[in-house]
Amino acid sequence: MFESFPERAVVYEVGPRDGLQNEAAQIPTERKLALIAALAKAGLQRIEVTSFVSPRWIPQLADAEQVVAALPRSPEVVYSALVPNEQGLQRSIDAGLSEAAFFLSSSESHSKKNINKSVAEAVALYTKLAKKALAAGLKVRAYVSTVWGCPYEGEVPLERSVELARRMVDLGCYQVSLGDTIGVGTPVQTRAVLEGMLARLPAAQLAMHMHDTRGTALANVLVGLSMGITTFDASVGGLGGCPYAPGAAGNLATEDLVYMLQGMGIETGVDLELLVEAGQLAQEAVGRELPGKYLKAASGARQKKAVPGQT
Amino acid sequence: MFESFPERAVVYEVGPRDGLQNEAAQIPTERKLALIAALAKAGLQRIEVTSFVSPRWIPQLADAEQVVAALPRSPEVVYSALVPNEQGLQRSIDAGLSEAAFFLSSSESHSKKNINKSVAEAVALYTKLAKKALAAGLKVRAYVSTVWGCPYEGEVPLERSVELARRMVDLGCYQVSLGDTIGVGTPVQTRAVLEGMLARLPAAQLAMHMHDTRGTALANVLVGLSMGITTFDASVGGLGGCPYAPGAAGNLATEDLVYMLQGMGIETGVDLELLVEAGQLAQEAVGRELPGKYLKAASGARQKKAVPGQT
Repeated sequence: MFESFPERAVVYEVGPRDGLQNEAAQIPTERKLALIAALAKAGLQRIEVTSFVSPRWIPQLADAEQVVAALPRSPEVVYSALVPNEQGLQRSIDAGLSEAAFFLSSSESHSKKNINKSVAEAVALYTKLAKKALAAGLKVRAYVSTVWGCPYEGEVPLERSVELARRMVDLGCYQVSLGDTIGVGTPVQTRAVLEGMLARLPAAQLAMHMHDTRGTALANVLVGLSMGITTFDASVGGLGGCPYAPGAAGNLATEDLVYMLQGMGIETGVDLELLVEAGQLAQEAVGRELPGKYLKAASGARQKKAVPGQT
Repeated sequence: MFESFPERAVVYEVGPRDGLQNEAAQIPTERKLALIAALAKAGLQRIEVTSFVSPRWIPQLADAEQVVAALPRSPEVVYSALVPNEQGLQRSIDAGLSEAAFFLSSSESHSKKNINKSVAEAVALYTKLAKKALAAGLKVRAYVSTVWGCPYEGEVPLERSVELARRMVDLGCYQVSLGDTIGVGTPVQTRAVLEGMLARLPAAQLAMHMHDTRGTALANVLVGLSMGITTFDASVGGLGGCPYAPGAAGNLATEDLVYMLQGMGIETGVDLELLVEAGQLAQEAVGRELPGKYLKAASGARQKKAVPGQT
């Protein structure tokens, strides 16, 4: 199972949405656009840029229309936005986006606290939204979060996540991104999660959205690669900490992911040096150092000194 | 190859030596001893505590004798120290340590800059030291560094590292720890490195000493586990940054390693909660936050809040 890896992989950048939404200080729209442009320039072809959520909910993303209107258009880059309700979907269609993303949890408590809906209510909503989105010509992607564990309930029965993922594909979602929302996943569990998913869904319709809260994201990605998964979500610089453990890392850093993939000879189309530039822009935008390890190494690598006995 | 993993693994703690040696500010001997005691209490049974190096070289470890004299003795814990020359070995024997560690590079430039000896000179020296150490009843462990890459030469031919590791075992070293000194390793390379090594040496005589400079340490450990390696070096909190990229992570954090191993059902004998306490002591000793991810997550985990749309 660990003998072969895919020849290429898709890196799905979520920093501008999933990363920035947690920032308390309002980031100017131009800075967001500069970051998105830098990410696209680095070769990322899937970028989630914002959320058409109520500005009352997430003031940081109140400029969704302005961001989408000014996106650097390119035939190679697909931009998407999170769409939490009918109004959001309409805004997304009006803004001219070609891809919408739905958000669900497989844990009831997380679903309630996160989107204020039971899992069944969320499924009912997205059933309606998917029809409308597809009719309007949008592609739809779904996130199923808390697959590896829930901050409120602990372990979540795998069948529930599998059922939910299957439902989303049946609704017309081209891909379901499985989230380790709190970054608890370890490789044996990941193998079990993916075995369960792959029994019901083809690898191409699955993505992994791993958090690096306990340092295990890339080890889990490695398991995914060995099982044929080829799409991985990541956030530039690791933007977007873990809201359940303040100060801890959240999203897997895009540079770390790309470094590992490239090192394994897996094509991503991403230029790591340009990606580091985007990471530096992200750091400037939020005004602090981000947790991504490759970013720190690349920023510090100019100096070199020997230390006796360095193992 | 990825189908089965070992039932138990040895975590070899190098923080008190490999971590602290890079600290500029002198750390009081009592703090070092408190840290070592906390590590032993957490269940670590292999701890490298200091280096019998000249105080002119590494002033931080000038208290080697005092540290060793006051170690919390336990029949389960084996303490070791780095021994760079004959004088160091004699000091180590006089101090009553039962294990010594040798340090080599498979890259000529790194060897020269790091221990001021060519690789051949280092081998000649350790040939002599090994005889004396074994005659005195010590066990001997060797580090072969720069196996995954050299900060000066880039790629290092694998045969050289294999040859060097084989030589060290022939001299009587019970184990050779293979170092990714600059943290560049990725999984396909790791598989190749280990295939090369395992063609000449049994897995039990090999350990992995991975740096997490680009976030890939645990993914590389996972490859090692799948190939039968059962000893992994790590440093509490990730103590010991990368001297080649200031500000970047160096040693793999012990908590991150133990978290992954335990999550995979691999027994380590380490209590993760007590290990976090040791990590907090290490942070206090060096006066700053350490890079270990689990440590940050555990320190921040008390607060919990929901963020809308958190994937």
